[in-house]
Amino acid sequence: MQGYKVAVVGATGAVGQEMIRIVEQRKFPVREMRFVASERSKGKILKFLGEDVEVENLSEFSFRGIDIVLSSPGASVSKEYVPRAVKEGAIVIDNTSAFRMEPDVPLVVPEVNPHAIGKHKGLIANPNCSTIQLVVVLKPIREEAGIKRIVISTYQAASGAGSPAMEELREQTRSSLAGEDVEAKVLPSRIAFNVFPHIDVFLDNGYTKEEMKLVDETRKIMEDDSIRITATAARVPVFIGHSESVNVETEKNLEPAEARKILSEAPGIVVVDEPSKDKYPVPVDSAGMDEVFVGRIRKDESIENGLNLWIVSDNLRKGAALNAVQIAENL
Amino acid sequence: MQGYKVAVVGATGAVGQEMIRIVEQRKFPVREMRFVASERSKGKILKFLGEDVEVENLSEFSFRGIDIVLSSPGASVSKEYVPRAVKEGAIVIDNTSAFRMEPDVPLVVPEVNPHAIGKHKGLIANPNCSTIQLVVVLKPIREEAGIKRIVISTYQAASGAGSPAMEELREQTRSSLAGEDVEAKVLPSRIAFNVFPHIDVFLDNGYTKEEMKLVDETRKIMEDDSIRITATAARVPVFIGHSESVNVETEKNLEPAEARKILSEAPGIVVVDEPSKDKYPVPVDSAGMDEVFVGRIRKDESIENGLNLWIVSDNLRKGAALNAVQIAENL
Repeated sequence: MQGYKVAVVGATGAVGQEMIRIVEQRKFPVREMRFVASERSKGKILKFLGEDVEVENLSEFSFRGIDIVLSSPGASVSKEYVPRAVKEGAIVIDNTSAFRMEPDVPLVVPEVNPHAIGKHKGLIANPNCSTIQLVVVLKPIREEAGIKRIVISTYQAASGAGSPAMEELREQTRSSLAGEDVEAKVLPSRIAFNVFPHIDVFLDNGYTKEEMKLVDETRKIMEDDSIRITATAARVPVFIGHSESVNVETEKNLEPAEARKILSEAPGIVVVDEPSKDKYPVPVDSAGMDEVFVGRIRKDESIENGLNLWIVSDNLRKGAALNAVQIAENL
Repeated sequence: MQGYKVAVVGATGAVGQEMIRIVEQRKFPVREMRFVASERSKGKILKFLGEDVEVENLSEFSFRGIDIVLSSPGASVSKEYVPRAVKEGAIVIDNTSAFRMEPDVPLVVPEVNPHAIGKHKGLIANPNCSTIQLVVVLKPIREEAGIKRIVISTYQAASGAGSPAMEELREQTRSSLAGEDVEAKVLPSRIAFNVFPHIDVFLDNGYTKEEMKLVDETRKIMEDDSIRITATAARVPVFIGHSESVNVETEKNLEPAEARKILSEAPGIVVVDEPSKDKYPVPVDSAGMDEVFVGRIRKDESIENGLNLWIVSDNLRKGAALNAVQIAENL
């Protein structure tokens, strides 16, 4: 029999659900599909290619015989179970932040550093959603003109914090429109008709962990610690699709027309950049799409070699589930 | 009899309404209040200090005898009527973009360049909302450490495009939650649960007029054309309160603690910067407030002298109406 034995860990979550859909859509060769989650979801029935699959309890699950694990529980859960899964012989593609910065764990975006996959020791990390869409666009720019420095401001969707955060956005918005009080439970601040610069936890240097992921993961994936990066990450009242305002200082001059050309020829990217026709990337258009969308490409006249870009992608697909499945396809 | 004869032009708009409220709240000495708008609103009754005031038609209105005009119609309307009002002897404080960049028209933020008011020839321009909150914060930083370059990304509220845009946000959000189709009529793209990098019209250089206002107005107000500035302006589904992610490169080193100190001592600014207690400025908290809020003050390690800041203010109050009334108070 052909195909792989695949387990999806965190199968009931927003990214897990998207992973299952993408495995189906891309006809990934699956011989056997297993769904794994926390004890709470044990016995739940989910569909795979029209068939019922029962959700199994992670703490009782054996990874012996499993070829590939698509993993997206919380970071603390991954930290605990992944070493066991690797020991039991599975190759784990983990979407959490648990192992991303470990030196012997490849951190992979297939369009950018597919060669890193070969170095895996049973575990490959999937980068953070906001990093993936950034590096897909930075790579062709770096190859053409080199990159000195990047200043990033993000506009991130609620789904980046999981399904409960999406539900919170929906409920808070309803309450707010009805003139009722609004309470933040899942997210750290009110999300309905609001913006807040707080994603993941705050670190001692005043940055959030999300902001430092953009710095550290980008350097690791680009295999270049000399790139200078600073970031501000904010949550906006959007369900799906992260947007990023990115200011890039290149080594050599790169004209916007030339940047448009090389980006439109690069894999996984769609250039949407016709301002005169009101065409630029927006999150609602990115939802459900596989590509990274880039537009508003223009010269930054405040430095010698500068470009401003506007980058949007579906944070659950290319930002998480799709990238993980692409890694599996590359294996 | 004490006080001034005041006319509010554009009295029925979002900013006009806020101007009237602020004149009341700040007990600006008014001897006579006149409300002026387009023909469409003629005869409408609005309140001023509990009394009925009938809205008059701008094209028939005489400015003879009027001391101060608080003006916030569209830029094209201002372009037409302001020269006449000045000729008829009134001092006009205009909130539109019509005359802001004219060399002999002072562009004033009272906390930043009050001395410019004295140079007026009957007309003083009120800067754009996104510029005002920026320069209030940049001024004390510039005085302390000098400013080389600024990279700005904005998260702007629907109210910046007027009351109809706020109504569009409300209606689109309702439709979207009900699973109905959403159509953009007032704003150039869908605003409900979306973000779009398009405020005001696109110019030949690929920037929007809003983005170039941030560049040009900031330089004019700071009286320094050597400051290098680049901006990306985006609309977010927020009713009131613009947020700005601002990266500042200073001439001299400025530690975040020192920046916090000088900002908290500067006029019109409130520092909200206790990340460990989830305290940072957000638009819903700024709505109805007079101050500019700044937080997330941290060192940008990607350059020698860099700071990241998060600046939020009520775009209808400090960003427009309050600033105009403050100019009137300074006159």
